[in-house]
Amino acid sequence: MNPVDLIIKKRDGAALSPAEIQIFVDGVSHDSWPDYQVSAMLMALFIRGMTDEETSALTLAMASSGRQFDLSGLPGIKVDKHSTGGVGDTTTLILAPLVAACGIPVVKMSGRGLGFTGGTIDKLESIPGFQASIDESRALELARANGLVIMAQTDNLTPADKKLYALRDVTGTVDAIPLIAASIMSKKIAAGAGAIVLDVKCGSGAFMKDLASARQLAKAMVRIGQHTGRTVTAVISGMDQPLGLQIGNVLEVMEAIQVLKGRQGGDLLEVCLALGSEMLVAGGGAADQPEARARLIQALSDGSGLGKLRALIEGQMGDSGVIDDPLRLPQPSCRRTWAAPRGGYLNAMNTAGLGHLFVALGGGRLRKTDAIDVTAGLTMQARLGQKLSAGQPLVSLQGRDPVKLDQAFEALDALFTIESEPGSIRPLILDVIR
Amino acid sequence: MNPVDLIIKKRDGAALSPAEIQIFVDGVSHDSWPDYQVSAMLMALFIRGMTDEETSALTLAMASSGRQFDLSGLPGIKVDKHSTGGVGDTTTLILAPLVAACGIPVVKMSGRGLGFTGGTIDKLESIPGFQASIDESRALELARANGLVIMAQTDNLTPADKKLYALRDVTGTVDAIPLIAASIMSKKIAAGAGAIVLDVKCGSGAFMKDLASARQLAKAMVRIGQHTGRTVTAVISGMDQPLGLQIGNVLEVMEAIQVLKGRQGGDLLEVCLALGSEMLVAGGGAADQPEARARLIQALSDGSGLGKLRALIEGQMGDSGVIDDPLRLPQPSCRRTWAAPRGGYLNAMNTAGLGHLFVALGGGRLRKTDAIDVTAGLTMQARLGQKLSAGQPLVSLQGRDPVKLDQAFEALDALFTIESEPGSIRPLILDVIR
Repeated sequence: MNPVDLIIKKRDGAALSPAEIQIFVDGVSHDSWPDYQVSAMLMALFIRGMTDEETSALTLAMASSGRQFDLSGLPGIKVDKHSTGGVGDTTTLILAPLVAACGIPVVKMSGRGLGFTGGTIDKLESIPGFQASIDESRALELARANGLVIMAQTDNLTPADKKLYALRDVTGTVDAIPLIAASIMSKKIAAGAGAIVLDVKCGSGAFMKDLASARQLAKAMVRIGQHTGRTVTAVISGMDQPLGLQIGNVLEVMEAIQVLKGRQGGDLLEVCLALGSEMLVAGGGAADQPEARARLIQALSDGSGLGKLRALIEGQMGDSGVIDDPLRLPQPSCRRTWAAPRGGYLNAMNTAGLGHLFVALGGGRLRKTDAIDVTAGLTMQARLGQKLSAGQPLVSLQGRDPVKLDQAFEALDALFTIESEPGSIRPLILDVIR
Repeated sequence: MNPVDLIIKKRDGAALSPAEIQIFVDGVSHDSWPDYQVSAMLMALFIRGMTDEETSALTLAMASSGRQFDLSGLPGIKVDKHSTGGVGDTTTLILAPLVAACGIPVVKMSGRGLGFTGGTIDKLESIPGFQASIDESRALELARANGLVIMAQTDNLTPADKKLYALRDVTGTVDAIPLIAASIMSKKIAAGAGAIVLDVKCGSGAFMKDLASARQLAKAMVRIGQHTGRTVTAVISGMDQPLGLQIGNVLEVMEAIQVLKGRQGGDLLEVCLALGSEMLVAGGGAADQPEARARLIQALSDGSGLGKLRALIEGQMGDSGVIDDPLRLPQPSCRRTWAAPRGGYLNAMNTAGLGHLFVALGGGRLRKTDAIDVTAGLTMQARLGQKLSAGQPLVSLQGRDPVKLDQAFEALDALFTIESEPGSIRPLILDVIR
């Protein structure tokens, strides 16, 4: 079937068969469809929408477009986790060790940060010596030894998704739920996941600003799971403020250590327990969520979670001394603290704005090739709903570039809404879709 | 404004401003928008539709994308005519001389044939010596001397339309009314028309198969005229059968001469009189349609129309001897006549199919670069609704390739519907939209 016939079929609102979707993805993979035909098809898919069958077929076709990670040599159900991206979201560094400590192996591919959301690999690479770019056989060895690996996504994973994403980015076809859902799910399936727990962020610091679209995305991914034989659970959690207190690579490593030492609770830990419970149940490590939660809390209190983090760092050649001595991590050369300019209730934050400040400080990237300052970041000293006094410290900035620090400092005032009456605050876990 | 923002605006169903349409067309003209962005925009324009303001802005932006033909040196309102393309449609060769004979100058750019519809330039070029590719200054000289020029469309006319059409052709975005309307109107405006009479064909031998879509296209073009200050009239005429009796380059030249000599009436002449009346009124050559029609019939009966054809041929270096001796035209080397296989009423023809046979005989082109056999063609010997006897000659084929002739002969049977009861026949002029 020629490309134009397929494009016209979708243009006119018909659903494409799995075989037709495969022809399209093959055309992308083999460069036999020129970009202008791919982008015409993307726009038709965007505007006309996609059925569950189409979205699932797209997911599987993209998943098999490159090298797939074969985890069948490891025993049990391989459970992966994916976050749609947030600010101050240190989840993986806490969750993965806790789940591994409960006997469920975690072999996770992660990305580097781009735009206002951070990336787990950047955080781990701020630990001196840590090697995130390891090959598959080394990853399997470490998984057998420690039950825990976190590696940079390999280049040949889902090349069709990579090409489609690059084209979507320049043709106004990024933010379609079916295309986003298929992109995420294809990478998880190609990375060998048998079950997937999704952390769908919702709020001012997430791609999905409102609960309705977060639910749509979550449901689309759960339905892809149903169509492709993978157990998928989606936790929708609030991103109206940074999840943890720290935003920054070194800062978030330090925070993860604090949480795993049992010294910090709050929203960050809560989200880890919610996601971890789903992972344990999906992986067969607990009969139900309450039992799973109890096991995770045990791994936290008996130090076995922290032990897994230590094994992870050592297994990938990092300096595990940072766990006991945070000063072994790279240190910033300047800090400034910003105080509330007036008293009142902290009713809202522009969380994406805080993420952009993190990028502006040098901690994140606008382009994939940008170098980063791992010490740059923000430390939050108040949570939403809190009553502030005028002059009370609200946020500290740190990094190695004093000019950037001063510029970021000036931009802070616009990001906080402080009012005389308390506002309404949403709960942290907004929904769980199984 | 960057391309992606404009694409997203249209993708989400908003109307683009004239300035935004201009940015898009400039991006196409200057190759500053890559093809994949242009095709994404085309698909969004196709699916979301376009307002009259958008369509008019697109028309004007494409019209001014290349060199425009300046006819202001000629007196009066310059009236142009355009046909959406049919089979056996010799209209221009009859209409243009008749209108010129009534004192309205006709400076017409025409195209070569592509696909199942013929092209006026191919027909004229079948006259020995005729030069269709002349430059603007020569065209203006001839227009002043004879009041009549028919020239091949110049390469630098509406380059943006040319690029957009090439991309539409390979991205499934050809058949959108606003894009078709803007493409036609941009070329007419760039060719210097102050008033435009459109011949919108409707039926089995036209791009618009049904009256509703023909009306939509006609109305879209009349509205573009209203928005751009040009008088536009659209005549919707039937194309359920070839308009004249001849389909072929030499054959249609011979038929035009017969009509201008007053020796052949019927549908072909009727359509010429209907279009010519609108042209005369639009050009100020007659107060109303009845007066215009009377003047055209006068030009036919007094031979002044035929005289204009002679002046046209001589002005463009052709052998006007063909008017009195058709054997001076190139001649075919073989002919075959196909007879009705059974008696009954000729209730329908696959007119596009007859056009495709003309191409298959070697008379037309599938690609722009194909060479053609100007002698190849079909002569119809019956009209729709006619009662046929078994064995009665229905169509003759001619050309220079006996193998093609035999293949075409075998394909004829499938193109005619002969039934025992008479069917319903539509009138020739289906609507006039002013």
